[in-house]
Amino acid sequence: MTIDDLRGAIDQEALGRRLYDCVRDLYPICRSITGDGVRETLRRLQSVAPLTVHEIPTGTQVFDWTVPLEWNIRDAYVMNLRGERVIDFRRSNLHVVNYSVPVHARLSLERLRPHLFTLPDLPQWIPYRTSYYEESWGFCLSQQQLEALEEGDYEVCIDSSLAPGSLTYGECYLPGESMDEILISCHVCHPSLANDNLSAVAVAAYLVGFLGRISRHYSYRVLFIPGTIGAITWLSRNERIVPRIRHGLVLTGLGDAGRFTYKKSRRGDAVVDRAAVHVLRQLGDHEVQDFSPYGYDERQFCSPGLNLPVGRLSRTPHGCAPEYHTSADGLDYVRPTQLAGSLMACLAILEVLEGDRTYLSQNPKCEPQLGKRGLYHTIGGLTRLPVTEMAMLWVLNLADGEHSLLDIVERSGCPFGVIRTAATILCEFGLLKEAAG
Amino acid sequence: MTIDDLRGAIDQEALGRRLYDCVRDLYPICRSITGDGVRETLRRLQSVAPLTVHEIPTGTQVFDWTVPLEWNIRDAYVMNLRGERVIDFRRSNLHVVNYSVPVHARLSLERLRPHLFTLPDLPQWIPYRTSYYEESWGFCLSQQQLEALEEGDYEVCIDSSLAPGSLTYGECYLPGESMDEILISCHVCHPSLANDNLSAVAVAAYLVGFLGRISRHYSYRVLFIPGTIGAITWLSRNERIVPRIRHGLVLTGLGDAGRFTYKKSRRGDAVVDRAAVHVLRQLGDHEVQDFSPYGYDERQFCSPGLNLPVGRLSRTPHGCAPEYHTSADGLDYVRPTQLAGSLMACLAILEVLEGDRTYLSQNPKCEPQLGKRGLYHTIGGLTRLPVTEMAMLWVLNLADGEHSLLDIVERSGCPFGVIRTAATILCEFGLLKEAAG
Amino acid sequence: MTIDDLRGAIDQEALGRRLYDCVRDLYPICRSITGDGVRETLRRLQSVAPLTVHEIPTGTQVFDWTVPLEWNIRDAYVMNLRGERVIDFRRSNLHVVNYSVPVHARLSLERLRPHLFTLPDLPQWIPYRTSYYEESWGFCLSQQQLEALEEGDYEVCIDSSLAPGSLTYGECYLPGESMDEILISCHVCHPSLANDNLSAVAVAAYLVGFLGRISRHYSYRVLFIPGTIGAITWLSRNERIVPRIRHGLVLTGLGDAGRFTYKKSRRGDAVVDRAAVHVLRQLGDHEVQDFSPYGYDERQFCSPGLNLPVGRLSRTPHGCAPEYHTSADGLDYVRPTQLAGSLMACLAILEVLEGDRTYLSQNPKCEPQLGKRGLYHTIGGLTRLPVTEMAMLWVLNLADGEHSLLDIVERSGCPFGVIRTAATILCEFGLLKEAAG
Repeated sequence: MTIDDLRGAIDQEALGRRLYDCVRDLYPICRSITGDGVRETLRRLQSVAPLTVHEIPTGTQVFDWTVPLEWNIRDAYVMNLRGERVIDFRRSNLHVVNYSVPVHARLSLERLRPHLFTLPDLPQWIPYRTSYYEESWGFCLSQQQLEALEEGDYEVCIDSSLAPGSLTYGECYLPGESMDEILISCHVCHPSLANDNLSAVAVAAYLVGFLGRISRHYSYRVLFIPGTIGAITWLSRNERIVPRIRHGLVLTGLGDAGRFTYKKSRRGDAVVDRAAVHVLRQLGDHEVQDFSPYGYDERQFCSPGLNLPVGRLSRTPHGCAPEYHTSADGLDYVRPTQLAGSLMACLAILEVLEGDRTYLSQNPKCEPQLGKRGLYHTIGGLTRLPVTEMAMLWVLNLADGEHSLLDIVERSGCPFGVIRTAATILCEFGLLKEAAG
Repeated sequence: MTIDDLRGAIDQEALGRRLYDCVRDLYPICRSITGDGVRETLRRLQSVAPLTVHEIPTGTQVFDWTVPLEWNIRDAYVMNLRGERVIDFRRSNLHVVNYSVPVHARLSLERLRPHLFTLPDLPQWIPYRTSYYEESWGFCLSQQQLEALEEGDYEVCIDSSLAPGSLTYGECYLPGESMDEILISCHVCHPSLANDNLSAVAVAAYLVGFLGRISRHYSYRVLFIPGTIGAITWLSRNERIVPRIRHGLVLTGLGDAGRFTYKKSRRGDAVVDRAAVHVLRQLGDHEVQDFSPYGYDERQFCSPGLNLPVGRLSRTPHGCAPEYHTSADGLDYVRPTQLAGSLMACLAILEVLEGDRTYLSQNPKCEPQLGKRGLYHTIGGLTRLPVTEMAMLWVLNLADGEHSLLDIVERSGCPFGVIRTAATILCEFGLLKEAAG
Repeated sequence: MTIDDLRGAIDQEALGRRLYDCVRDLYPICRSITGDGVRETLRRLQSVAPLTVHEIPTGTQVFDWTVPLEWNIRDAYVMNLRGERVIDFRRSNLHVVNYSVPVHARLSLERLRPHLFTLPDLPQWIPYRTSYYEESWGFCLSQQQLEALEEGDYEVCIDSSLAPGSLTYGECYLPGESMDEILISCHVCHPSLANDNLSAVAVAAYLVGFLGRISRHYSYRVLFIPGTIGAITWLSRNERIVPRIRHGLVLTGLGDAGRFTYKKSRRGDAVVDRAAVHVLRQLGDHEVQDFSPYGYDERQFCSPGLNLPVGRLSRTPHGCAPEYHTSADGLDYVRPTQLAGSLMACLAILEVLEGDRTYLSQNPKCEPQLGKRGLYHTIGGLTRLPVTEMAMLWVLNLADGEHSLLDIVERSGCPFGVIRTAATILCEFGLLKEAAG
């Protein structure tokens, strides 16, 4: 099955439901950049995608970084003297600053305050905060909760552990005809945040399933990794694979109601950049951003010594919606249709990457006579040409070994599928041959 | 005489009348891609332009194509049982689908209908249709005519012949100082359609006359050929000439009331493209189109194995006016002033191509002192410089052997004539020399 | 002291007063392209800038030009028969056409008229006119004055001398770490015109003073020269220095109320062009012009055989304000704040040129861990990054030896100072090293 056949066969409504169920299943787990939350997440994903789980010990040097102590948490709360949990980890794992060191103490509100984080402008929402690389602890709560706290003493408890262990990530490898690889990466380190990034985790996992069913030109590598340290760890341990990566996508925030946003690779004109721009243009309203060195793991893939052709596909970009990194990024914030549409967009981009080829016209001097082969209308004098005939003329005109199908798509304005089909027909009639190398 | 002297000497009103008379003379002839219509057209043009007529036998292989059987027609009609010609070739040669095979039969309206072509949205006009490469027959008529046809039987007659013969085209060669050539091409295969393409046929024929009177840097080759098969035939038989073609223009639809449209060559930045864009910009409102592989014979000249620097000059582009390929493209649709303006635009483009040179300043370090040579105003302190002095400064500043006059025109925004004059003056004063090679 | 330290330490209000005083001091002097007016101007500037005065004898060949006779003037008038000076050089030195030959005669108004220059559209203002290279004489006056002249005879006197002498110019050289030079040039040949060019003369002179106090990467050469012939003379005598000029600015018209205008060098993408565009963009409303071969001495510096990377900084460009080259360009037309702002803009441009470097990240694969060095916020999850951290990420991402800081500035949109500071910090932490060569 080709990727285009696959796309045609997908029931998007059913797909949306499955993706949403996956997000809902993973949502309650308290993930971090290390620890059992990631392990449990990967374990559950194995039912969807055949991923291998890697454990990298605490203390391993990865480029300029070191794999940190492993963090796990069982419970956390702030309790008033009446024994009421006024902040309770069991209600939302966002309540604890991620990677908080253990603490059990009695503190006045005044001394507790520097450890409390709120969003004064969004008084009902709990922020998501982390402190991976500085030993510290804290609680996140809504501004309303904060204002309701009475003066006085509180029992503060974070039942966490920060101890030697390992960093866990998942990896899927699907071999193709070529050793050249397409890399797909998503971060799995955020706790109960649905769009960021369970949406992309679900899309990536189902993508693995679909890619397993098609005949692949490229080999595919799909990473489920903690943000930053996970990408650095993977890159540090897989330097020999890096040169094989021909195209790549970081996936994040693919379930919200917003339009697509594609952030270009550092190169800016990589084939994946051009493929994504073409696909999103066909899909309608969208945004294209130039590369910048802030964001998700494209930061690492596009560092100057690697400079990989890796872009990022999102819907509303991180930081551009108020729900970003708050408790409002919950199960209501993501939509089945958006999840399914995101997976379909990924497949459309991959279809371009898979199908992009360069051809040589076998009749480079003047047009070949399409009519005698039944490829051209027989009544002449018409004002406009049928789309497929126009596409054949474009392909023949640019099949000089220097224009790939994507080049032809860009110059002609025709959709990739139409151009690809035209090329296939012309090949069948011996009018076109794939260019060597 | 230089081409600029020529342009200055032309009486455009008289020229417009002559061009229009030429169109009117050729209009009634029923032309096709082969046959006596083309022969008679070329014979009449010989009084204007000294063209050589070539006959290429049916069956000759020309690249992927074969020269077809020759088609001629004497009469055609659809007659009702009262003996009235309800469709009559003698009234308009558009009534017969061009290249219809002979037929003589009695048919019911019902069985006749699949052979009838109309324009339902333009109910008074007869469409122009062809069937060159599929043996078939048909009639074109107005929607009003069609609706007036009564049920019943009709006598259908197309007194045509489709038999071995030849394809006919005309060619003019005007040698210049250089063996390098400028190609001008127009199609002569359309029957009674005035703008498409008798307008361009007349312009091309008179252009030959004018070019014969000037001192030419380039050699010129002007082709009067049937569309598509004619261009393919000429290219196939003249491959040794192709490398000499430095610039080229396909001419079509030059008599209607519309503004100029220039369609760029496949290269997009050929000198002829830049010259045409400059000239049309000077002339006022106009349109520039990127290359596409549909249209007229630029399709063949710009096929990937030839990739000639050949653009197309038109007024309203084919397919963009309702009159296109209908009986409404008659003698009223073309205007003498538009025909003359088109020829003048061709000359202006050729003036740029003829006059474009690269120079070296003989005083490249600092400006030479123009004042002591009488080339500069003597009273200083003025706010603005006279146009010719500004042009001299531009030419001197860019005469580094890497900028042609057309480059200087584009960078300075000055008209080509002004820049060319400035260069000529500077050469006379020894301040400039033509760069070698 | 670095140039950025210097910029921070300047009291702009006091600077504006000093620049304005300098303009006022020089305003009454009657300057020309040669003669005592230039000598006196340079003598007074020596109290501000340590400039060397050069005298080049009349008759010296300088490229295609010759150093002209020296012109000096003591008095000039047109007197009516009642003994009243109706035009009087003592009231404004603009009244005499600059470089007028001596004359003493009695003439009717009718015979005098061809020697009188006015601005009919600006009837109250005296124009500024010159006749350097044609022996001639004339008077400039307001249209109102002209209209008030009664018919009859007048005594005409120009007590000038045109005799062998020399052309005078001033030059300042400030050595830096590198032999590579930055050239700054202004013309000192205009008589009582405040903006054109005493504004730029004052700015250039004070710039010398400031540059003398900083540690300089580049060597600086500041020229105070008569327009055109002065630039040609200097270039002709200093051809061996020309290859050392890495960047340059022509300064003119820097005191009027208008926004900044930067005219690009002939190259169009020289570093000085990009630096100036960046600085003016940061400063707010401004205009950038493409190079043209008319204007001030950039014409000579950018002649094709030199093609130096020299742009021009002005406020309202010459010829774009009615006051240009008229008596309305007086002491009221320039403003202390504008003068000071212009000098600050020059320093800002020079700061970019001085500070532009290319670096290599010492951790090119993935980001280095900024957090463990205290260079990164410790609480994660925030929506937006602090400006300096963002700047560090940009510098690290583009520190591949192929992007200079100015490249990074252009791509990131961050101000140069922020990027430069980020690079400095990263160097201090060993994360960045300057690229060789």
